[in-house]
Amino acid sequence: MTTQLPGSPSEASRPGARVSYRDAGVDIDKKYESVERAKAAITRTFTPGVVGEFGSFGGLFDLAKAGAGRGLLVASADGVGTKLEVAKLAGIYHGVGRDLVQHCINDILVQGARPLFFMDYVAVGKLDPLVTSELIRGCADGCFENGLALLGGETAEMPGLYKPGDFDLAGFIVGCVEPERLLDGSRTRAGQVVLGLESAGLHTNGYSLARKLAFETLGLGIDSRPRELEGKSVGEALLAEHRSYLRLLWPLLERGQIAAMAHITGGGLIDNLPRVLAGCDALLDAKAWPLPPVFRWLVQAGGLDFDEAYRVFNMGIGMTLFVDPKDERQVRADLAAQGERVHSIGQVVAGSGVVRWK
Amino acid sequence: MTTQLPGSPSEASRPGARVSYRDAGVDIDKKYESVERAKAAITRTFTPGVVGEFGSFGGLFDLAKAGAGRGLLVASADGVGTKLEVAKLAGIYHGVGRDLVQHCINDILVQGARPLFFMDYVAVGKLDPLVTSELIRGCADGCFENGLALLGGETAEMPGLYKPGDFDLAGFIVGCVEPERLLDGSRTRAGQVVLGLESAGLHTNGYSLARKLAFETLGLGIDSRPRELEGKSVGEALLAEHRSYLRLLWPLLERGQIAAMAHITGGGLIDNLPRVLAGCDALLDAKAWPLPPVFRWLVQAGGLDFDEAYRVFNMGIGMTLFVDPKDERQVRADLAAQGERVHSIGQVVAGSGVVRWK
Repeated sequence: MTTQLPGSPSEASRPGARVSYRDAGVDIDKKYESVERAKAAITRTFTPGVVGEFGSFGGLFDLAKAGAGRGLLVASADGVGTKLEVAKLAGIYHGVGRDLVQHCINDILVQGARPLFFMDYVAVGKLDPLVTSELIRGCADGCFENGLALLGGETAEMPGLYKPGDFDLAGFIVGCVEPERLLDGSRTRAGQVVLGLESAGLHTNGYSLARKLAFETLGLGIDSRPRELEGKSVGEALLAEHRSYLRLLWPLLERGQIAAMAHITGGGLIDNLPRVLAGCDALLDAKAWPLPPVFRWLVQAGGLDFDEAYRVFNMGIGMTLFVDPKDERQVRADLAAQGERVHSIGQVVAGSGVVRWK
Repeated sequence: MTTQLPGSPSEASRPGARVSYRDAGVDIDKKYESVERAKAAITRTFTPGVVGEFGSFGGLFDLAKAGAGRGLLVASADGVGTKLEVAKLAGIYHGVGRDLVQHCINDILVQGARPLFFMDYVAVGKLDPLVTSELIRGCADGCFENGLALLGGETAEMPGLYKPGDFDLAGFIVGCVEPERLLDGSRTRAGQVVLGLESAGLHTNGYSLARKLAFETLGLGIDSRPRELEGKSVGEALLAEHRSYLRLLWPLLERGQIAAMAHITGGGLIDNLPRVLAGCDALLDAKAWPLPPVFRWLVQAGGLDFDEAYRVFNMGIGMTLFVDPKDERQVRADLAAQGERVHSIGQVVAGSGVVRWK
């Protein structure tokens, strides 16, 4: 390492004028430390499809070994949105990793896909290995609990773009579905019942508005316990974890008893159901399920009208299923047996592809 | 849409107290507009593997139709780093999308993989459809030129986390490789020659340091033309596009004439070659290729020592190939026939898995 820079004179190492990468705000050792701290959580996600060891070359995945040899791949990318800002206020970072993975799982589950692997992108202003490893561990735990591999990822330290303490988190999921089991709206028919499964809270949508209402309009803090939240703090209510519906719904998908599904994310029931309405309407009854306290609280704080509220927030329904009447009894029984409360929130009717309200 | 909120009294819509999602800084229409503006660029990337139409459900990909039925999947995630900040200063956004795609392509190409599809993640503080669509179009054009599909992505507007005008860009790529063509270092042998292919500039690494040196240490502006850059402006030199080595190297990979490859990214030659050294050393000669002006300029500005410079920057070599002596002549001839300048930068020798310098 004593070689001079080719073509550069000895001023290249004049003392006192040195600027290092670390001076510029990038610390590669801390990046390695972040991943190393999450290593045990990552390696336990390695399903039979994963090829190679931890820390070896980029993510290799053997579809045949994962039992996915002849399927279509289904891929999706997403972020957590400004739920990150709430996590930061609360100093709790593990949950948003799980939120992201479970959001991505649901996004491809609605196409009938089984998740195979996930990759994370963590961007920070100043790398704190404790925080970053918690984000990665959250992703890894979400993967482990849902049976998919955390196959790789990228941690980027970007001073200037992010303030110290700020970070962003995005994820990418790949799953597979056998072509004959693909759910794409083509099995939607007038006469089907719309079943709603409860969300755990806001999941990962509507946080810019929720934060404005909680912290500006109402002037509350992360630990405030407004009466409307019935004992929960603002942080607890807003950080409730995005549910994964994979284990709950997979047996029904394998039996072909779900005709179509919609994951209720940004755009709410109003914008997400039309993805699978295929020219029919969904006639929904907003009184068919209990509105959780957190939504009532936010709606009242913002004076939100019906359309705004049901577009920005999931309003208590995280997943919807279209089910043929002949299958409804067994679907409900199966879900009830797993302890799930199921709500008949409406019907599929002839129409033009929009959500209407009773 | 006249239904009252269930369980919420009429105060829910008290006049004067309304706060909308748009008030909170999130404009869903602008998100759709951004994607719509990039639609033509996106749809022309749709290879035979892509299932479904633009704007339909999440990304579906048919491996068999893409001629990738029996391969391993190779996946990678990455960002552009703070090259984004330089792009912002210059007001040129298209290039960083191409940078990102081409960086990701090279990352899996070194494992012998052919890229199949890509997904982007764009995060912004305030959504400007003109900027966002340029970022997406850049990704799409990078995909089109390299024959892979832009299968989907996510655009997130996150007021508070990003300042207005700030944005981040990350990407995920999936490719495939037949197991017997996988490059993982297992074919590395002492006696092989190390060939270096030129970079176009910094590619996507070392920008935090480069920005500090250019804009703070030297106090230059984006349009400054320091003598050392030989006619180029700071912006032109720093935004030179990350090369894709896919088309150049694919014929050699198909003929099995490359034993191992390393993409020179963060960590430079010093940290990237060991990924495929498999217990051998690489004995390199830093005088074997011309040091481009941009690197000489940065090294002198920062008084960087040799080790720092060759770890942070690629120093003019964007891709390295390990080639058996029996194949060297034909490899060099093939590359020369494509107009490529190839440098013999060293040899693989017995050792312990590190880079040494002549």
